[in-house]
Amino acid sequence: MSRRLVAELLTRDAFRPFGEVITTQGADHYPINNGTAERYHDLARLELSAAGGSPLLSLFRAQPRQLPVKLSVIERHPLGSQAFMPLSRRPYLVVVAPAGTPPDVTALRAFAAVNGEGVNYAPGVWHHPLLALEALSDFLVVDRGGPGENCEIFDLDPAPLLVWDAAAT
Amino acid sequence: MSRRLVAELLTRDAFRPFGEVITTQGADHYPINNGTAERYHDLARLELSAAGGSPLLSLFRAQPRQLPVKLSVIERHPLGSQAFMPLSRRPYLVVVAPAGTPPDVTALRAFAAVNGEGVNYAPGVWHHPLLALEALSDFLVVDRGGPGENCEIFDLDPAPLLVWDAAAT
Repeated sequence: MSRRLVAELLTRDAFRPFGEVITTQGADHYPINNGTAERYHDLARLELSAAGGSPLLSLFRAQPRQLPVKLSVIERHPLGSQAFMPLSRRPYLVVVAPAGTPPDVTALRAFAAVNGEGVNYAPGVWHHPLLALEALSDFLVVDRGGPGENCEIFDLDPAPLLVWDAAAT
Repeated sequence: MSRRLVAELLTRDAFRPFGEVITTQGADHYPINNGTAERYHDLARLELSAAGGSPLLSLFRAQPRQLPVKLSVIERHPLGSQAFMPLSRRPYLVVVAPAGTPPDVTALRAFAAVNGEGVNYAPGVWHHPLLALEALSDFLVVDRGGPGENCEIFDLDPAPLLVWDAAAT
């Protein structure tokens, strides 16, 4: 029988070992533009210049998954951070494991983002590819372009089964 | 009587002198994550490293304006680009003038973003602060942090009046 991984609510504290939650909640902010806007400043630790890298702005359009999701693979980007910001407020799921070689699959964690917040993975943090729910979902992505091998993939075998009880989160 | 500036539809071609429109329309893209997502790749020319700069990820929360809007000021960031991506699909307006000292106010242009697309201002391009419409609106912003004076402000006198006919755009 597959191991079950249960998604918990995404919070700043819970996600701290893996990067940052991109949210106005609890963020530093100040008025700009003569008071007509508020700047929630510097919400993620972007690390994009290693080994001749530079920042890229892209958009990922992710297909929705059906729960439960069989998690067969995780990946990581050793040379840079990778930030995802949803362009809708639909919930999505995040699966991570601490940086390390090989990944400690017993330390996999799953989170449900339910308030339109984004995530920024620190360099080297293992994560599952995007897990959109309900409908085709767009995410703005800030990650690293440049020379060098910046994507490692690890097969999960046996594949855990990701479950989420929205009502209990 | 104030000069009137009429917002036209935001398109890639019309905006090219000022930066990039951040949109999937006409963008390079390819499948990733075993075909479960599509990457619309490198949608804006991020220039964030001049004079010891580095990229910042922030969120601007902009108050809605009432039309017509009196445009009393424009600003620019000589040391870096600045990208805005709306986190809703509400329309918003963009006002720009070409890079130059002083700005050529006779060359002001106004654009209406009506399809959820973003904009990236090239370094030195003059622009009005965010012009959200209808409701409080969040934008994800990628701009430059670092040493040096990176914000110049120019007062528009007389102040043009920005108008937009949504039905005619």
